[in-house]
Amino acid sequence: MPNFADKLIRAVQAKKSSICVGLDPRLNKIPQFILNKHVEESGETFKAASDAIIEFNKAIIDAVKDLVPCVKPQIAFYEEFGFPGIYAFQETCAYAKSQGLMVIGDVKRNDIGSTAESYANAYIGKVDLFGKQTEVFSCDSITVTPYLGFDGIKPFIDQCNKFDKGIFILVKTSNPSSGDLQDRVVDNFAPLYEMVGHLVESWGSDEMGESGYSSIGAVVGATYPSQSKKLRKIMPTSIFLVPGYGAQGATAEDIKSCYNDDGLGAVVNSSRGIIFAYEKNAKYGPQGFADAARDAVIDMQKDLGSVGLM
Amino acid sequence: MPNFADKLIRAVQAKKSSICVGLDPRLNKIPQFILNKHVEESGETFKAASDAIIEFNKAIIDAVKDLVPCVKPQIAFYEEFGFPGIYAFQETCAYAKSQGLMVIGDVKRNDIGSTAESYANAYIGKVDLFGKQTEVFSCDSITVTPYLGFDGIKPFIDQCNKFDKGIFILVKTSNPSSGDLQDRVVDNFAPLYEMVGHLVESWGSDEMGESGYSSIGAVVGATYPSQSKKLRKIMPTSIFLVPGYGAQGATAEDIKSCYNDDGLGAVVNSSRGIIFAYEKNAKYGPQGFADAARDAVIDMQKDLGSVGLM
Repeated sequence: MPNFADKLIRAVQAKKSSICVGLDPRLNKIPQFILNKHVEESGETFKAASDAIIEFNKAIIDAVKDLVPCVKPQIAFYEEFGFPGIYAFQETCAYAKSQGLMVIGDVKRNDIGSTAESYANAYIGKVDLFGKQTEVFSCDSITVTPYLGFDGIKPFIDQCNKFDKGIFILVKTSNPSSGDLQDRVVDNFAPLYEMVGHLVESWGSDEMGESGYSSIGAVVGATYPSQSKKLRKIMPTSIFLVPGYGAQGATAEDIKSCYNDDGLGAVVNSSRGIIFAYEKNAKYGPQGFADAARDAVIDMQKDLGSVGLM
Repeated sequence: MPNFADKLIRAVQAKKSSICVGLDPRLNKIPQFILNKHVEESGETFKAASDAIIEFNKAIIDAVKDLVPCVKPQIAFYEEFGFPGIYAFQETCAYAKSQGLMVIGDVKRNDIGSTAESYANAYIGKVDLFGKQTEVFSCDSITVTPYLGFDGIKPFIDQCNKFDKGIFILVKTSNPSSGDLQDRVVDNFAPLYEMVGHLVESWGSDEMGESGYSSIGAVVGATYPSQSKKLRKIMPTSIFLVPGYGAQGATAEDIKSCYNDDGLGAVVNSSRGIIFAYEKNAKYGPQGFADAARDAVIDMQKDLGSVGLM
């Protein structure tokens, strides 16, 4: 049976693309004609916001689904609209899966063991609903934070194992102050992010797939190329989820070090640069937002191709 | 104007109690008669689960509201029921506030700056809903993780400042493997948790209240008393949110070091030990679950009192 890593690697190879489209809806950037439609139906309510997000996301998914292996909804942009927002998140994940895309839920969850289990069940496992094991968010994988150590991670690994799902553990994040903790030298030896990298590689050893990659991956920001180069060596079997390309400033050249020599081992996310591309080029207009997103993916593929990446 | 720290300290003094009741509903521990009622109404659905949680929580809140200053719903136990679960979380927070309790949302959120802003708006700020600034989860404070450094924390501090809200940053957690990262010695100087403690104390310096405490608090597990003693010295002005008492094994004696000499500076959480107390003593029966919770709070107050704590 192929595990999560195998399925993701196969999807990358089938689509000849390692691009992940970040589905980070922002109400003030969704085309006005979509907002108007739902406000007319439901007023200026959370329901209208939720319905507008769903319509926007479905159009983006339809526009890119033959080009990319995966999408990454960032749950903060759904959660901010309360339970109707979470409904939009669930619908987005379900629709993306129904269209053949793998879903990386960017939720950055973690907690102590018994609580982490609830998160793991909800996102990548099954929840006990009056005795019936039921899927809730049906993500293929999610992002998790490492600060609580192994017993906060293990419940997620258990679900990966049981349901062929995956996780991406934060190792070196793309933001300017990621070094506040992550770059501190620990045990008089190496920066914290390297230590976490070693932990992630070892935690993933039981979740190896036929592809030679593990279902326990790592979040490694594209904005720190020299660090990602080191991490690639420390974690040869981990798939990197790479944020930071495009709007956050990293170039195709910067992300090369996130890949192994086989040209695999990473998926690169772009959110704003793709889904709101219509704002940057007047030729599309708001009605052409999905076409603009598709063209932005094609442009990104060319950009990655120019440095030899898929 | 009193800020979050002032309001929490006043509530502790008014109730003569530093107990926080953890609202961590588990479907298999909610009394059967409540579950049956909602399954009869809605079938074995997520809606039935959500309604059962709301009914259970409201009864617990009513039973303890004159005794304790605050409650702490752990969102994982709501999130696992999808959007209907998040509805139950929102209703629980709103009801607790309407009954005069302060609400600590145990969400352990964090992300890079622009995303952290969305979380901050949702939980302790206001969200832009078609141009109208709207409250979503209306927590008084939430827990956040520190792995991404200051620019993942700042958006939360900004909302604390704007709306007199608070945060509790994970410093030393109560779980067995918390030392995997947190106990590593950084910069050849001190364990990571101490370094994070220093950061938290400095990040809180602009959020000081009249009480002498800051609205930027810390999560410090009761299960590591020698570490919490050190942290109390490093962070004299931070309020500690202390998990680990009771079901996780820490005693009243263990938590003494989380308090300052003024007898303030900490709130101690107990979840299972209070809300599911009816399971441990047959005299209550399922119908008496709220009475059992009330008595468990009174017992915990006596226990804390025996070592000189409120």
